[in-house]
Amino acid sequence: MHTLLLDSEDVRANAPMGQLISALEDAFGAYQRDDAQMPAKSYIDLPQYNGDFRSMPAYLNVRGDSVETNDGWDAAGVKWVNVHPDNRAEYGLPTVLGTMIYSDPKNAFPLSIMDGRELTMLRTGGAAAVATDHLAIPEARSLGIVGAGVQSYSQLEAIAAVRPIEEVVISDVDPERAAEFIDQFEDRFEIRAGSVAEAAGCDVLSTVTPVESPIVDREDVGDHTHINAIGADAAGKHELADQILLDAKLVIDDYEQTTHSGEINVPYSEGTLTDDDIYGSLGEIVVDQKEGRTVDDGITVFDSTGLAIQDVAAAHVVYTQATENGNGTEFDLLGVAE
Amino acid sequence: MHTLLLDSEDVRANAPMGQLISALEDAFGAYQRDDAQMPAKSYIDLPQYNGDFRSMPAYLNVRGDSVETNDGWDAAGVKWVNVHPDNRAEYGLPTVLGTMIYSDPKNAFPLSIMDGRELTMLRTGGAAAVATDHLAIPEARSLGIVGAGVQSYSQLEAIAAVRPIEEVVISDVDPERAAEFIDQFEDRFEIRAGSVAEAAGCDVLSTVTPVESPIVDREDVGDHTHINAIGADAAGKHELADQILLDAKLVIDDYEQTTHSGEINVPYSEGTLTDDDIYGSLGEIVVDQKEGRTVDDGITVFDSTGLAIQDVAAAHVVYTQATENGNGTEFDLLGVAE
Repeated sequence: MHTLLLDSEDVRANAPMGQLISALEDAFGAYQRDDAQMPAKSYIDLPQYNGDFRSMPAYLNVRGDSVETNDGWDAAGVKWVNVHPDNRAEYGLPTVLGTMIYSDPKNAFPLSIMDGRELTMLRTGGAAAVATDHLAIPEARSLGIVGAGVQSYSQLEAIAAVRPIEEVVISDVDPERAAEFIDQFEDRFEIRAGSVAEAAGCDVLSTVTPVESPIVDREDVGDHTHINAIGADAAGKHELADQILLDAKLVIDDYEQTTHSGEINVPYSEGTLTDDDIYGSLGEIVVDQKEGRTVDDGITVFDSTGLAIQDVAAAHVVYTQATENGNGTEFDLLGVAE
Repeated sequence: MHTLLLDSEDVRANAPMGQLISALEDAFGAYQRDDAQMPAKSYIDLPQYNGDFRSMPAYLNVRGDSVETNDGWDAAGVKWVNVHPDNRAEYGLPTVLGTMIYSDPKNAFPLSIMDGRELTMLRTGGAAAVATDHLAIPEARSLGIVGAGVQSYSQLEAIAAVRPIEEVVISDVDPERAAEFIDQFEDRFEIRAGSVAEAAGCDVLSTVTPVESPIVDREDVGDHTHINAIGADAAGKHELADQILLDAKLVIDDYEQTTHSGEINVPYSEGTLTDDDIYGSLGEIVVDQKEGRTVDDGITVFDSTGLAIQDVAAAHVVYTQATENGNGTEFDLLGVAE
């Protein structure tokens, strides 16, 4: 028995978007049904390096009604991830790195160790797709993305898997980053750089910036736009004007995480936005305890902070696929191989 | 920049006992001085598999007074570990597996991924040696070990590094396991199988069993025996008769962990043993806030539950040594190598 090492390329190559999105939908469902265990993230703060570490363990048990496989599966693991904003300038490294240990729940064998950075992008895009599938208008053809950083690519890939996206508007303060994004996708989409308002007027909008003052105004947003608010991941960060959140059908991934560090954390802590303004969680919608978009809905917002169950579900897909494809590097980490 | 993969053999081969013990002493000191961060262990309980997972993240900053290096160092990491008692019978795997991710605190790069099972044995033995060095009589020549399982080997290796051990008594209900242990060490020590009482009469005693009812009686213990109580790692487990703990100078590794899951947890929860019976922590002794053994002391006990800072300190030694020796397997997990 070996541990399968999957580097960033292996992870990317073994994440078929349809399966990934289905597994993430399964994960949100399992979490809602209490078939998951997700201890609170543990933080290690290192102000001397302007950085932190987060430990994100989880287990999930998807019973026989899996969207992904029509059969039950369970999975466990931990992601060890960080945010070090000075990494690019000081070390030529990405701000966010990450390592995922994916284990067999029945005997704890580490089935795989994989790049957690690529995995984070994939599962974040995939979760936005699950939300978009339940909350955007069915015929959504245009997608706006604000922020052309590393997370923007998987937003487009994932959302295009659940809606017939034809037109894409990418908005970034750095024209070079926008151009790189266009370069990557121009053969598949009608794609152009545009203002935040142009992006926000699309059928679907994903915001993936680290800003601390809102950059999307209420009047920018289309009448029936669904917004995936991805960027806010710490107290003090938000991307959308409060009024957007107050006017929208507001869906969150997790109550504790969103009220403390998600898109809603600033107006929530100020009392501008209260529990009454939260429509429900994505899990409630996935298991049909609450309705997704109805014909009467206007703006919808999904506040995504990122859950450890998403990492475990995404790792499950990547490991299963890599094993089938014979990808990755086998390593006898524990010295138990025959 | 590559991540260094260190399998069980690499870990074993790169843990010089003297350096390991010094680094562990540094770690207990840093923890005592508040130069460490150690969020509570996160548990995932899987009763359906009779098992659990534990996530153990930590950071420690050893300032310029390091016992190990005479110079400062810091280190971070997470150990993902489990207890699955049915593993041997059902899967031919050890009960406890483990994977350690060892990261550079300044930029979070995963410097090394290593076998956490071997690491756990080493750091547990090493902590017992730190305690023995401060609490056993200086001329201790005999060591008793109760329980000849995987943890017993590193107890002997580590304790023999801090005291002139010549005579060893190994006690186990399974004569074959005792014979295997003797076989391993008979060329280096005067070693024999014996009763629990014979082991407990030695100058130093280490108990490394998973029992839930005490197996060491008060009258078994020598007048000046130092005891490392290693086995108890969950509520309900204990190896020593209450009266031993009450009569001893009682030292713990961590207040929260020992009162909940260490050797003292049963009498503590029953009220037989209270905070007044605890002399102090190993960290307090290491930094000279409290005295170790004095000439007036009789029995001493170290209640060891195992701390995440020990794993990080041990990983620091193993990674440093492996790098110097050119051992291990380089792997570009993150896809950032030039």
